Amino acid sequence: MQLSTQNSFMASSRATRVLSLTRRPFSSSSSLKFDAGVSMVQGASRGIGLEFVKQLLEKNDKGHVVATCRNPDASTGLAQLKHKFPDRLKLLPLDLTIETSIQASASSVRETYGHLNLLINASGILSIPQVLQPETSLNKLEKSALMLTYEINAVGPILVIKHMWPLLKVGGGFGTERSTAVVASLSARVGSIGDNHLGGWHSYRSSKTALNQLSKTAAVEFARKKDPIVCISLHPGTVDTDLSKPFQKNVPKEKLFSKEFSVQKLLSIIDNVKSNDNGKFFAWDGQEIPW
Amino acid sequence: MQLSTQNSFMASSRATRVLSLTRRPFSSSSSLKFDAGVSMVQGASRGIGLEFVKQLLEKNDKGHVVATCRNPDASTGLAQLKHKFPDRLKLLPLDLTIETSIQASASSVRETYGHLNLLINASGILSIPQVLQPETSLNKLEKSALMLTYEINAVGPILVIKHMWPLLKVGGGFGTERSTAVVASLSARVGSIGDNHLGGWHSYRSSKTALNQLSKTAAVEFARKKDPIVCISLHPGTVDTDLSKPFQKNVPKEKLFSKEFSVQKLLSIIDNVKSNDNGKFFAWDGQEIPW
Repeated sequence: MQLSTQNSFMASSRATRVLSLTRRPFSSSSSLKFDAGVSMVQGASRGIGLEFVKQLLEKNDKGHVVATCRNPDASTGLAQLKHKFPDRLKLLPLDLTIETSIQASASSVRETYGHLNLLINASGILSIPQVLQPETSLNKLEKSALMLTYEINAVGPILVIKHMWPLLKVGGGFGTERSTAVVASLSARVGSIGDNHLGGWHSYRSSKTALNQLSKTAAVEFARKKDPIVCISLHPGTVDTDLSKPFQKNVPKEKLFSKEFSVQKLLSIIDNVKSNDNGKFFAWDGQEIPW
Repeated sequence: MQLSTQNSFMASSRATRVLSLTRRPFSSSSSLKFDAGVSMVQGASRGIGLEFVKQLLEKNDKGHVVATCRNPDASTGLAQLKHKFPDRLKLLPLDLTIETSIQASASSVRETYGHLNLLINASGILSIPQVLQPETSLNKLEKSALMLTYEINAVGPILVIKHMWPLLKVGGGFGTERSTAVVASLSARVGSIGDNHLGGWHSYRSSKTALNQLSKTAAVEFARKKDPIVCISLHPGTVDTDLSKPFQKNVPKEKLFSKEFSVQKLLSIIDNVKSNDNGKFFAWDGQEIPW
């Protein structure tokens, strides 16, 4: 793409800025403005990440999706999608804890597509049997848990944004009906400090709070440099996945979402975010969440 | 102290709850309500921490102060204070990165005093020559810097709170003119996500944001368990210390505070916080900072 095209996207983006609303009227639709764009889903082997890959492929008929996870060969979900969409799905190994593997993914995307229009950071850890358990009290805090959770939930995603940034900057809205690229990182409402009334889950909370700050800090830089990228954090609700499975017993049935429902809502937000949403933190229903 | 005494402090604390104000009228005074209490300053070798130790000793004539840092013998500032206040100052080695050393400090305080009335987490890192430099752009992020800053600025302080908790719970306002103990952790305005308009300093920002969340999470638990402890985060302003030295050139002279001034303001906040301030984030002037 040409720089002049790039600039016209940016001008268009600036021209369409509208007043911010506490709740944005993100409308769901069966097709996406990202059609014919190149999207990357980081943390795609299962759960919400895998569902993003599925819907991005099913709701577009031209768009390409790059799905990354530590070991794509071990994901039956990705294998099924690869079988169904052999030409539009690219699987790449990416280990969040190894920066060179993030760099290698960026190089591979650059060689194949030259740019990115959408990056979704979907990975995250909450518990690992015998290793990591959300803390029910301050006296259960362990340094190893705090450090591991931060590494996976905050440091990994911002390093992915760092390395995909040049591809997103070149991509902008190119090939899509949008005027900007989008970076969306899966955060969680429990990462909100202002909304923290229950306590507990120290490691997970602080990692998501830090992710919100890192995402906001990136958003500020994108805006200052007039890069055609909108960078947001998202709360998917409590979704019926392996991550939430051990903690579902007190969740009312109507508040436990299917992956399909949550991702449909989140994709609608992602597809419709405007430049003035840059740096914000949205729940699945479009409501802004306090920091 | 007796449990009944403890409970009367708690009842008194609940009875005196007042409406929250955006800006609290914390008044400075030359003496402290913490008189005759036991205070711990973690990160006391120099800078703001050392100044806290000095003012806590000078503004009280009975209070005891426990000053901790990695190597107390290497701090000439602490040596001078120890010479001046041999009976009321206790120096303890505490390495934030080694949890057993935090535990050992807690044991030592328990043996000597049996309780704590005040814990100030004053340590923090921003830059280390050849090792750590605040990031001016996303593309300068390094995993090692993110992890190290989180370990020192967020994980260390919350582990100190974890281990001093039983001593603070027993202490409450015992021996002071206060009805509760206080935990105050030095955060920074740049840790605010809502107030982040400049970007940059990713590692430092996210570590302080995480510290704010961890401090709030502890505060919520203290309140739920009706422990007589108020837990707050503080922004000291830009203070003329070794930490800020490399970054002072763009700070207007009137906004670069002396250690004496900043600590005087912060001690006034600490000395006067009420139960309904639990979990809040105050600047040096008593204004609440958005998360």
